Amino acid sequence: MASLPEACSLDEADGLASARERFRIPDGLIYLDGNSLGALPAATQSRVDELIRDQWGKDLIASWNTHDWIDAPLRIAAKLAPIVGAQADELAIADSTSVCLFKLLSAAVRARPRRRIILTQEGNFPTDTYVAGGLAEMLGLDLRRAAPDDIIRAIGEDTAAVTLTHVDYRSGARFDMRAINDAALAAGTLVVWDLSHSAGAVQLDLNGTGCQLAIGCGYKYLNGGPGAPAFLYVAKNLQGDLQSPLQGWMGHAQPFAFEEGYRPVGGMARFLTGTPSVIALAALEAGLDTFNGIAMADIEAKSRALLALFIGEVERRCGEEIRLYGPRDLARRGSHVCFAHSEGYAVMQALIERGVVGDFRAPDLMRFGFTPLYTRFEDAWRAADALAEILRTRDWDRPRFKQRGKVT
Amino acid sequence: MASLPEACSLDEADGLASARERFRIPDGLIYLDGNSLGALPAATQSRVDELIRDQWGKDLIASWNTHDWIDAPLRIAAKLAPIVGAQADELAIADSTSVCLFKLLSAAVRARPRRRIILTQEGNFPTDTYVAGGLAEMLGLDLRRAAPDDIIRAIGEDTAAVTLTHVDYRSGARFDMRAINDAALAAGTLVVWDLSHSAGAVQLDLNGTGCQLAIGCGYKYLNGGPGAPAFLYVAKNLQGDLQSPLQGWMGHAQPFAFEEGYRPVGGMARFLTGTPSVIALAALEAGLDTFNGIAMADIEAKSRALLALFIGEVERRCGEEIRLYGPRDLARRGSHVCFAHSEGYAVMQALIERGVVGDFRAPDLMRFGFTPLYTRFEDAWRAADALAEILRTRDWDRPRFKQRGKVT
Repeated sequence: MASLPEACSLDEADGLASARERFRIPDGLIYLDGNSLGALPAATQSRVDELIRDQWGKDLIASWNTHDWIDAPLRIAAKLAPIVGAQADELAIADSTSVCLFKLLSAAVRARPRRRIILTQEGNFPTDTYVAGGLAEMLGLDLRRAAPDDIIRAIGEDTAAVTLTHVDYRSGARFDMRAINDAALAAGTLVVWDLSHSAGAVQLDLNGTGCQLAIGCGYKYLNGGPGAPAFLYVAKNLQGDLQSPLQGWMGHAQPFAFEEGYRPVGGMARFLTGTPSVIALAALEAGLDTFNGIAMADIEAKSRALLALFIGEVERRCGEEIRLYGPRDLARRGSHVCFAHSEGYAVMQALIERGVVGDFRAPDLMRFGFTPLYTRFEDAWRAADALAEILRTRDWDRPRFKQRGKVT
Repeated sequence: MASLPEACSLDEADGLASARERFRIPDGLIYLDGNSLGALPAATQSRVDELIRDQWGKDLIASWNTHDWIDAPLRIAAKLAPIVGAQADELAIADSTSVCLFKLLSAAVRARPRRRIILTQEGNFPTDTYVAGGLAEMLGLDLRRAAPDDIIRAIGEDTAAVTLTHVDYRSGARFDMRAINDAALAAGTLVVWDLSHSAGAVQLDLNGTGCQLAIGCGYKYLNGGPGAPAFLYVAKNLQGDLQSPLQGWMGHAQPFAFEEGYRPVGGMARFLTGTPSVIALAALEAGLDTFNGIAMADIEAKSRALLALFIGEVERRCGEEIRLYGPRDLARRGSHVCFAHSEGYAVMQALIERGVVGDFRAPDLMRFGFTPLYTRFEDAWRAADALAEILRTRDWDRPRFKQRGKVT
């Protein structure tokens, strides 16, 4: 049980409190949807403006050299290394998350040509399942789904590749990477991890947990802006063996030699394809820079403290009308939490009207994301307070809250 | 033969002269590389800044509805319709050019499952050949190359798909779309046209010339900024039959229903995959808006007049030291021209030092792009004059001009 003054005193003691100044959060808004679209970093506008005005505008084509645009996908990716627990030369920024998944899943499957099954989790983030399904159909493979708890048992000799989302977009449940990677290794197969709901939110150790392949999203906890480019991770020992079928000039050994034949470059650049949006890369770089000097262990610790406060207050004050969805053990979840309510959509709209922004995921889940760089304990307390108040007064029970829009 | 005053009087009489004000061209620069990276439109900075500050910054996740980000890929694509001669609902903006080519070429090949050959032109833009090669290898197909003049003869019963670049990136030679499309239709196969060096530079009539599939680049003549997203065109009658293997949530019939199975939406949206960079889309929109109210017939007419003046002056003043590469007939080329010179690299560096920016393509080609929206006749004359002067004085013969950088 906590009071507002107690929550505020947690903010006063919070070593990460000053990181909030790295963002522009609208006054009075309690933004608990950074797991869907991260907030605007304070540095983004001027970075992007400078790139457009001084680089593109003045130096034009010469900027590829002068401002080193050509190396931006790897240079910026290196900033992810401490965030995900990988080496700087195991990362690249490219394309969308879906396209990156297609690349690494294809490369993994191609490395196991006689195996027939792509395995994924039931209830995986839909676009990941669509990508895996599209690839399976293209190659005449089988896409199999297993419940998260059955994944290890489902990995077998005929598994060409596995793709899993590390932190579930609804339940927040976190896979045990080490255990899954060990099982995959024993079966001689590769796992492509989707880190979209993990990177920047929880402490990852891709190297230490034996991860071979991963992709993730730039616009959630990494604050890269709407539709920011995605990232790819390929463990160093595998980089020479794998090849994406999406071969493009950015992955060529000599992109400016304009050779007719494709010769993949060594290292992560071979997983690049076409010319990246340099403007989008600049915005993503400003997003990644919001993590400068901050340890992921501290971010995860604050995430758990925020979740503990929020879950505790919600359960204490809202009673049985709502139900926590996903693991209760905070060590087994990411940095968002869903509560189920039969009128979850309308309740979320009522919250949004009060300036508490989360989102809704079918069929009945209200989702709240906690972004330790800018979410305050005060925000967590006030959000729980607003939710309790809306439920107590049935304030959600108005026609305007029940009309569904395109995006919630 | 023309003089500088004559060139300037052509500018005075030019109906497109005022379009130059839609761009920010650095003072004193003669920029003849808009075929590689289009110049900065005057509107781009404020458009992008407003999107970042007011949409992302203030409305955050709600912007997907409030500012209709979700429809941006099709809404902005519709602006391309008059530029390429297609219907507004036959276009989409997505990904990079290479990824778009992979999508449509895969879709075309899948529609002809028993055919074994992907056909392309010798000397095609390298990344297109890499993409086609990657797809062929993935599916166990054969990638065949034929000389541009032999393409029609090479199309046969076993041709699964053809991919050609409409305007060659070096010679500037333009394919006869109608003739190729007719041959493909007769053989029951599909052509994917790469319009990267055409769109915005020459008058296209995709519908009228029987084009079924096309892709193209947003950052050349369309002025969308470095690495701008690409575009896809699928003729209306084919949209229901084709499906890209790069299935993602943006192409789903109900993206926000989060269904486990992929159900492609009708129309062009089914060729979308992941979340697009909304910032990059805003910049591309400002680029497309530079064409507002201007007929492509007028752009092509000015392009030919610029080329005629430049080629005429260069040939008259530079003599046999350089050689026009590609067709002499202006009706058979796009809006750029290459001249071969054994020391072409050094000559181009000397030109750049004098503020005339073209580029170099191996082995010996100096390339000059004419962008009718902002290139003046005066620029064409001065560029020819500078080139003649550099050759006459052998000014290129200095060590600093012979040192090759990464990008030229």
